[in-house]
Amino acid sequence: MASLSLHFSSATPFVPRATPLNPRTRTRTLKPFSIRSQSAPVLSQDDLKRLAADKAVESVKSGMVLGLGTGSTAAFVVDKLGLLLSTGQLSNIVGIPTSKRTQEQAASLNIPLSTLDLHPHIDLAIDGADEVDPNLDLVKGRGGALLREKMVEAASSSFIVVADDSKLVSGLGGSGLAMPVEVVQFCWKYNLVRLQGLFKELGCEAKLRVAGDGSEKPYVTDNGNYIVDLYFKNPIQDGFAAGKEISAMEGVVEHGLFLGMATSVIIAGKTGVEVMTK
Amino acid sequence: MASLSLHFSSATPFVPRATPLNPRTRTRTLKPFSIRSQSAPVLSQDDLKRLAADKAVESVKSGMVLGLGTGSTAAFVVDKLGLLLSTGQLSNIVGIPTSKRTQEQAASLNIPLSTLDLHPHIDLAIDGADEVDPNLDLVKGRGGALLREKMVEAASSSFIVVADDSKLVSGLGGSGLAMPVEVVQFCWKYNLVRLQGLFKELGCEAKLRVAGDGSEKPYVTDNGNYIVDLYFKNPIQDGFAAGKEISAMEGVVEHGLFLGMATSVIIAGKTGVEVMTK
Repeated sequence: MASLSLHFSSATPFVPRATPLNPRTRTRTLKPFSIRSQSAPVLSQDDLKRLAADKAVESVKSGMVLGLGTGSTAAFVVDKLGLLLSTGQLSNIVGIPTSKRTQEQAASLNIPLSTLDLHPHIDLAIDGADEVDPNLDLVKGRGGALLREKMVEAASSSFIVVADDSKLVSGLGGSGLAMPVEVVQFCWKYNLVRLQGLFKELGCEAKLRVAGDGSEKPYVTDNGNYIVDLYFKNPIQDGFAAGKEISAMEGVVEHGLFLGMATSVIIAGKTGVEVMTK
Repeated sequence: MASLSLHFSSATPFVPRATPLNPRTRTRTLKPFSIRSQSAPVLSQDDLKRLAADKAVESVKSGMVLGLGTGSTAAFVVDKLGLLLSTGQLSNIVGIPTSKRTQEQAASLNIPLSTLDLHPHIDLAIDGADEVDPNLDLVKGRGGALLREKMVEAASSSFIVVADDSKLVSGLGGSGLAMPVEVVQFCWKYNLVRLQGLFKELGCEAKLRVAGDGSEKPYVTDNGNYIVDLYFKNPIQDGFAAGKEISAMEGVVEHGLFLGMATSVIIAGKTGVEVMTK
């Protein structure tokens, strides 16, 4: 895969061939990066994630304050940044990690780190997503870091999302996988029942996330809270309205709908890489 | 003071002499309970709090699920409930405490306790407040229990506020004392700066609450979060707008504005007890 990623190096000039603005979704798709390997190799999901990550890192300039995402695709971004810093192709970078996990990975790669407290303005954040809809609205947080991701990404001038094409959905919640809501531990069951009731008409099922270590202990976020995962039979029609209703519940700390935040989305698929922008 | 509280026993018939509805504040003041002691004793702040608490407990009926507040005035309510249960004047009560402190007090008085998880619908909550404005909107949370209080009181069919008259303000934030905001520990300073900036025009000063044990360690809520206290030079003009803006900040868990929640407010002053209702 190393050879494929060369196609996207900064030596390749960026000449977008933009499609017209789609009036319904208010987005446009740029396809200058679409490549097909002549030997048609079978690309794994990890290959695709790395492709998207490498493309995103091309937007990083020396001297930037960077939001570092969490999850398997974001980990490729951090890896690449570490590599470019070690070879001197990038310098004077400050990273703001969105989880303890990312903090540890970045520290192991000698990426200088700071916090929002010291760097309240971030130039660029790069992170993965669990779902991407045609408006560039997202579901995030299956990795459990939704609150810190949202804090960091909301503080960023630009926010590039990196994902493989399995994350594309026509409507949020449409993948049938979890849309997470971080809640305080106090009376989590009460909030679980309320959340499920809120989306009754979408066939919503709410489940407390468990640690996944074989025990049935609840998963605990970096902030000491629990996560209620919402599973939808039908996608959410109005993400902004849903987000407001969830946020209005006492005891809800944050939710996984990231709306109007992404400035571009880089999607890697079997046939190449696409950049979606607003 | 025991003799004074007898004036408010259930033996005294409730005959409200309601003033007309105030069209500006949409509240009315009932003054059937105004009493003056013939010997004009000097009532301490605690006497007044107990007066208000005793009056509120008159609304409690056997069989009710009760939200139990937190703070010095709410503690008198819990004391009184314990007394009435021990004498058999009340029975079959279930209390939902709003803090670990209240839970301990109620348990020591043998008040049966439960949680929102098991009792999501509460008949009546009684709690103190730090500020009460003419619309019966409140500032609460100086005791640190704002989140649990808001969860419990939002789940209550009725919510009676008990306070001494030092808590009356013409506008929220107008006492010059703290309006608390519960925030996650992660990057609390970032949120402190943002909160102060949000209310810059009101001369707002934001301070992290400290434990008050002589150390300068932050105060940690029952939910493991910090509290940023906001001090206003000028009162908040539009509480609902302010609440929305605070809640929209990532990392804010809850705020101390309790808007449109109180169904009545019992205020005890040197000249007697007033009941304000909507």
